[in-house]
Amino acid sequence: MTGPGDARDGRDQTLRDPADAARRIDSLIASGDLRTASDMVEEMPPWLIVDVLERSGAKDRAVLFRLLSKGTALVVFEALDPPLQSELIRALHTDRVNQIFTDLDPDDRAGLIDELPARVATRLMRELDHDEQALTAAVLDYPVGSVGRRMSPEFISTHPDVTAGETLDRVRQRIDEAETIYGIPVTDDQRRLVGIVGLRAIMRAEPGTPVRDLMNDAITARARESAETAARRSAEERLIVMPVVDDEGRLVGILTFDDALRVLEDAETEDTARAGGAEPLRAPYLATPVRSLVRSRVVWLLVLALGAALTVQVLEVFEGTIEQVVALSLFVPLIIGTGGNTGNQAATTVTRALALGDVRPRDGLRVLAQEVRTGFTLGLVLGGVGALAAGLIYGTDLGLVIGLTLLILCTVAATVGGLMPLLAQAVRADPAVFSNPFITTFVDATGLIVYFLIARAVLGL
Amino acid sequence: MTGPGDARDGRDQTLRDPADAARRIDSLIASGDLRTASDMVEEMPPWLIVDVLERSGAKDRAVLFRLLSKGTALVVFEALDPPLQSELIRALHTDRVNQIFTDLDPDDRAGLIDELPARVATRLMRELDHDEQALTAAVLDYPVGSVGRRMSPEFISTHPDVTAGETLDRVRQRIDEAETIYGIPVTDDQRRLVGIVGLRAIMRAEPGTPVRDLMNDAITARARESAETAARRSAEERLIVMPVVDDEGRLVGILTFDDALRVLEDAETEDTARAGGAEPLRAPYLATPVRSLVRSRVVWLLVLALGAALTVQVLEVFEGTIEQVVALSLFVPLIIGTGGNTGNQAATTVTRALALGDVRPRDGLRVLAQEVRTGFTLGLVLGGVGALAAGLIYGTDLGLVIGLTLLILCTVAATVGGLMPLLAQAVRADPAVFSNPFITTFVDATGLIVYFLIARAVLGL
Repeated sequence: MTGPGDARDGRDQTLRDPADAARRIDSLIASGDLRTASDMVEEMPPWLIVDVLERSGAKDRAVLFRLLSKGTALVVFEALDPPLQSELIRALHTDRVNQIFTDLDPDDRAGLIDELPARVATRLMRELDHDEQALTAAVLDYPVGSVGRRMSPEFISTHPDVTAGETLDRVRQRIDEAETIYGIPVTDDQRRLVGIVGLRAIMRAEPGTPVRDLMNDAITARARESAETAARRSAEERLIVMPVVDDEGRLVGILTFDDALRVLEDAETEDTARAGGAEPLRAPYLATPVRSLVRSRVVWLLVLALGAALTVQVLEVFEGTIEQVVALSLFVPLIIGTGGNTGNQAATTVTRALALGDVRPRDGLRVLAQEVRTGFTLGLVLGGVGALAAGLIYGTDLGLVIGLTLLILCTVAATVGGLMPLLAQAVRADPAVFSNPFITTFVDATGLIVYFLIARAVLGL
Repeated sequence: MTGPGDARDGRDQTLRDPADAARRIDSLIASGDLRTASDMVEEMPPWLIVDVLERSGAKDRAVLFRLLSKGTALVVFEALDPPLQSELIRALHTDRVNQIFTDLDPDDRAGLIDELPARVATRLMRELDHDEQALTAAVLDYPVGSVGRRMSPEFISTHPDVTAGETLDRVRQRIDEAETIYGIPVTDDQRRLVGIVGLRAIMRAEPGTPVRDLMNDAITARARESAETAARRSAEERLIVMPVVDDEGRLVGILTFDDALRVLEDAETEDTARAGGAEPLRAPYLATPVRSLVRSRVVWLLVLALGAALTVQVLEVFEGTIEQVVALSLFVPLIIGTGGNTGNQAATTVTRALALGDVRPRDGLRVLAQEVRTGFTLGLVLGGVGALAAGLIYGTDLGLVIGLTLLILCTVAATVGGLMPLLAQAVRADPAVFSNPFITTFVDATGLIVYFLIARAVLGL
């Protein structure tokens, strides 16, 4: 037994840093010294092996995985992303594959099956025994992206009339099978969910107390509901276990807090990628080839560039104005940048408030009221500063143009930025993804139009 | 007992929608009908009361809170953000305040004390009994933002030589005090942490088995470590309980998964706000007055505008070139926009990879290699499309200028964007916050310089 925190402490640096470990193992594999590589892997904790696999090329990954002992291989395999799992499955020998597939939990198995070619998936499913097949089929029955697909069908449940003592016995009997024992769903004679009881409440109660007197209302998910929505609710309510029910309210599975965290992690990866204007990567960054990186980004870049082409058109309309006062063109990046920033601030704030439940879709008017006033105030400050600075250097007229433009643009940008996430939600798009590109395109074009119209009026062009 | 999912089902819509409920209660309070308001609140689940409080003005909030029964008041109070808690504390009567303060958990108490004026905090602390004072003081001993400040000092621990049966007895005896019973830290005679054992393992084992044979290495946090780092590790490793140790490795508290989720939620609110170029709000959006919204945004806007002023200077240098070929100014927003998008894509991808541990700070060279090639490829595609489109409309020369500029700019932007998060990490700034504004400023200015230099060369100006 080693000291506290040791697993992450990095005392043996050479075996703790994934970059080092990956480099050493790669060179051992390259030189064909598989025995030393195997010894080295044997010493490594599973999380480090996962890290090393995630930063190796496809070929080394398969070689390295084959070096793992049976138990380690399963733990490591479960921690990999499905695309890497699928890649390994296709690179390994049949009996090894069958073994791993049989040992996986039903929900992990379902996730992997989505990635595999149908032929391989069917063959693997046939290898399972009847019970495991049924459990996996139950999960596969639900659509991809639903919580039914991510739940565990292996749970312990109890009944309102059963006592705390009997429930505790049931827990002890089935302690090895169930995904968790810390939260126990309560179902009636028709398997309909009627509540949930914590193991703590069971243990604290007199053994003769019926579960009816101990259970609470359950916060549940419907199996066809989006996995992300359900997982978010589970995390918000800090649930250890969230029961999953079918359309008739019958208990069909549980979403444990660790599965919920995994769902949220995947969703966050997707959201941040899209909010940054790229498609999410399907494998860890260093394991992703350049062509996949390009593919994940190029479509969005082209779409955004198409939006930006609008600004070229707008500017073309005002080309005559620019020819008359070239100095006007100097402020174009500043104006559209400030408009974009103001819009993004508002969008980010409201998106986050939506995510936290602080704002609901029906609060449009209150958001409008907040943002019009906030944008106008920001416009007064920025417009004032801008008018002063530009006025001092380029003369009063240009100062006035800059000031007025910023005042109007900040008001418009904050308002549009604040309402865009609500609009996104209304059309069932993800506010975090949808808002910023649209705001930028809209505010860029609007900002230029406002700017040049004001310039024409003030400068009398 | 009601049906499954009822708490969120919204069958009784009038009492389920926070906006509706808030409106009705506000008008009841305004008309002085506190009795009906009180009856209505009595019917509402705590999460709805929290929502309603978070969207009321300060005065209504205090009135409404006074209507709550003692038990509900505590649950609701615990769920509020510390700034709103502090506001309520100052609006309520002394004895009510003392009661709530005494009933809070030590870690929640510490969070509230940070918000209160020192005078009020000292008075409240004096009201506590000796044990509670000591527990709270232990938490307050650690710096704000550290995990020590967010941990719970109320835990059950066991010893390697103690048996499973004895541990289970200990759990039963202290089941009401401890924050959780599902993960039990194991300490030696000097209170040093030596491992952790799950309640499940304890329950599964023969009663005579010593804990030594059941426990695992613990993934721990040091009390002075940042709460966010520790909470992220806890969530990544899907821990129900993370033991917190002092510098000598002695167990001082535990971070439960729900506390970890709360820390991460706060951190995410802060990060998304800053990434969107605003300071995080201290209270829910609808409870935030306009002046606070302005204050949270105006400084960042001014700083970013100062950065954008750089583009004015760059353009001024090339004012002569623009005068000669005004058409060049048409493409300025498109060029800097595309550069910014390319940089942000790379920054977002690498930031996320860093957060997931897929990339480490020492991977700079591998990131460089990935991004130079990705950026160059993206530049070929976008530059090709741009050259073609601009060439067809504005002539071959301008097409060539646009194409070459996009090729170079995409390469530079992806490279800088990919390396910026690593740089941020190296100087201990938050990559998600630091990267995007810096990239935008840098890429805007660089893009313009590249653009006009190429234009001069190609067009022979």
